[in-house]
Amino acid sequence: MDIEQANAKAVERMMESHPVLVGLGKAKDVIPGMRDDLLLHAGPPITWERASGPLRGAITGALILEGKATTEAQAQALVESGQIKLEPCHHHQAVGPMAGVTAPSMSVYIIEDKTYGHQAFSNLNEGYGKVLRYGAYSAEVINRLRWMEEVMGPVLKDAIAASGGIDLKALISEALHMGDEGHNRNKAGSILFLKALAPHITRVSREAGIAADILQAIGDNALSVLNPVMAACKAMADAAHGIEGSTIVTTMARNGTDFGLRVSGLGEQWFTAPAEIPQGLYFPNFKASDANADIGDSTITETIGIGGFAMAAAPAIVTFVSGAPKDAINTTLEMYEINYTEHKYFTIPQLDFRGTPTGIDLRKVIETGITPRVNTGIAHKEAGVGQIGAGLVRPPMAIFEQALVAFAEKYEI
Amino acid sequence: MDIEQANAKAVERMMESHPVLVGLGKAKDVIPGMRDDLLLHAGPPITWERASGPLRGAITGALILEGKATTEAQAQALVESGQIKLEPCHHHQAVGPMAGVTAPSMSVYIIEDKTYGHQAFSNLNEGYGKVLRYGAYSAEVINRLRWMEEVMGPVLKDAIAASGGIDLKALISEALHMGDEGHNRNKAGSILFLKALAPHITRVSREAGIAADILQAIGDNALSVLNPVMAACKAMADAAHGIEGSTIVTTMARNGTDFGLRVSGLGEQWFTAPAEIPQGLYFPNFKASDANADIGDSTITETIGIGGFAMAAAPAIVTFVSGAPKDAINTTLEMYEINYTEHKYFTIPQLDFRGTPTGIDLRKVIETGITPRVNTGIAHKEAGVGQIGAGLVRPPMAIFEQALVAFAEKYEI
Repeated sequence: MDIEQANAKAVERMMESHPVLVGLGKAKDVIPGMRDDLLLHAGPPITWERASGPLRGAITGALILEGKATTEAQAQALVESGQIKLEPCHHHQAVGPMAGVTAPSMSVYIIEDKTYGHQAFSNLNEGYGKVLRYGAYSAEVINRLRWMEEVMGPVLKDAIAASGGIDLKALISEALHMGDEGHNRNKAGSILFLKALAPHITRVSREAGIAADILQAIGDNALSVLNPVMAACKAMADAAHGIEGSTIVTTMARNGTDFGLRVSGLGEQWFTAPAEIPQGLYFPNFKASDANADIGDSTITETIGIGGFAMAAAPAIVTFVSGAPKDAINTTLEMYEINYTEHKYFTIPQLDFRGTPTGIDLRKVIETGITPRVNTGIAHKEAGVGQIGAGLVRPPMAIFEQALVAFAEKYEI
Repeated sequence: MDIEQANAKAVERMMESHPVLVGLGKAKDVIPGMRDDLLLHAGPPITWERASGPLRGAITGALILEGKATTEAQAQALVESGQIKLEPCHHHQAVGPMAGVTAPSMSVYIIEDKTYGHQAFSNLNEGYGKVLRYGAYSAEVINRLRWMEEVMGPVLKDAIAASGGIDLKALISEALHMGDEGHNRNKAGSILFLKALAPHITRVSREAGIAADILQAIGDNALSVLNPVMAACKAMADAAHGIEGSTIVTTMARNGTDFGLRVSGLGEQWFTAPAEIPQGLYFPNFKASDANADIGDSTITETIGIGGFAMAAAPAIVTFVSGAPKDAINTTLEMYEINYTEHKYFTIPQLDFRGTPTGIDLRKVIETGITPRVNTGIAHKEAGVGQIGAGLVRPPMAIFEQALVAFAEKYEI
């Protein structure tokens, strides 16, 4: 078995994957294996008992939205009794930011890989502050989600269909030249997304006021495109998964309690260890001791070479996640140490159009002792509060060590 | 007389100026001194005889649009006989990119300086390729201008009114953090502009198809915001103009034949010398010998500290104007040598959020021998062709020398 060759193949597939947003549908209609008694969540598998505050809050909100519970206690009872099951988004070709809770009746973006044919999914982004993905579930959160399902969703669905598809690979590439890194900073990507959809939204809406409200909602939310971008990254990561003998990481994801890792040549096995608390900047009135551990599937961006790995492209992000522009450059330079290659299509003007560091090689992480750098939002540790800051975090080294041991065992090295 | 104090005041006013897009109107209704027998043009004053091909082409197109001519010969006869007068945009609180020809019936953006109360104006951007501002005047050019006047203009007017005004100072500041330099690269600014207007365009249009067409036109044109940005820069430059004893440059503008300069402490006097041919990259099938001399009022961007001076913020621009990202950084660093200060509000993340070089000091240009760096489009030298490339250019040193002599004479130094 030639690891080098396997990794070259995995990373080639990751880069040649071509994700296009082709539609919008209800999770239960389009996500493989989605069922009425199932909620998807970010990160590796978890139980209610071990779930963090923001994940419990998001589960509660999702069950309120589904009409199955009205309180956290009821939600807990449903989950603990097994009437409602929890499974990772990643087990269903999906990803979700922060808690990542995706309910059967929620609309999800449908991404198709035009090179390899598989699909990936992600829910809609709600905006800032008190939002389900950060564990908030007050009436305003639920009302907002209802508006998204009843008003925005049907229009978005028709607009995406009318657009003939939105090339997310091209969008990411362009946004990296406009100061985004694609994870915490999606300002440019979100208005590129608005630009692509706006004429269609206007044409398909049954009244102008609805179209205007939707254009406003997408335009005001500088994370509008995060979810489709994450699903695009999931499609790219999945293209690289399952290559026999490859040490390339194809999943990094956190459920708010554990950080989970999967590797191309190691099938569906998760390697997990406790997630860390991000270091960063807090909103007024919040502090580090309020913070939940690292949470969300959005590390799929770093997994395929953007996000924290492309920080050099987004120097203005330091006002949001802490640090100086030089730190942004250094982050990207450090990541070249543990990645297999430089991306063919995602380039950084600031580094003379060098490709982003792409394809985390398990072996290099162990050899160098350098873990991946991840940009992230910070959730309050209690259910019901929401976002309290943003910052930087690294996965625990233990998961890479476990994976390498498993790799050595499987391949008898 | 204290030059230092005068310059400090001029540059303070330049930076504290606060341009907001407040409306749209027909040039003859809103631009002071506009008349039915008048065409405005870029740069210092010029006659038909000395006008370059692209300016003659744009004058011809404007007179076709106005229904006053059908051929270049007729246009020439009208201008040479004095039936149609030519005056600089800059004499009427206006600016226009490339040929800058503004006809009485054209719609213009109305910018108001919220700090000092004065107004500035600019026409609408037509997009790329065969366009009036590059001297093209074929039927497709005229039809496009008619659509802009008859369909887009009325909607834009109502949308801007409904928006309550668009803060262009904030927009420029944000775009500089998104890879724009505000002159040749306005990708981010143009979609920020789209974002601000889209809901209003949708609401005020009488039918969805019209709104969709307008959203498409604005979104597809990465220079949509150039003209309102130029008018915003004009407002900022005018705020700094007329300060007794100041050596700060308040106008740089080219008519395709001459490069013209005006200075804060030297009133309305123009200092001119032949404009140079830009150095840059040409579209397929064109070469340097096809190029017209430098043309347009868009140097108003450099005059107030963005455009070429903010190149460090826009490393991706080198794919369009030539050079490497390092050249972009060096251009900005060089410009600090001849500018009075660093902008308080326009900052460059790549340079640790240092302010852009702001307020060209005539004395420093002479002392250092460094002339301002300007980004620009390149027009074909013959009327009727259009844009053939983009690149970099510098004004002739002679105009700074003339201005310094005039300054010494006026102030008896």
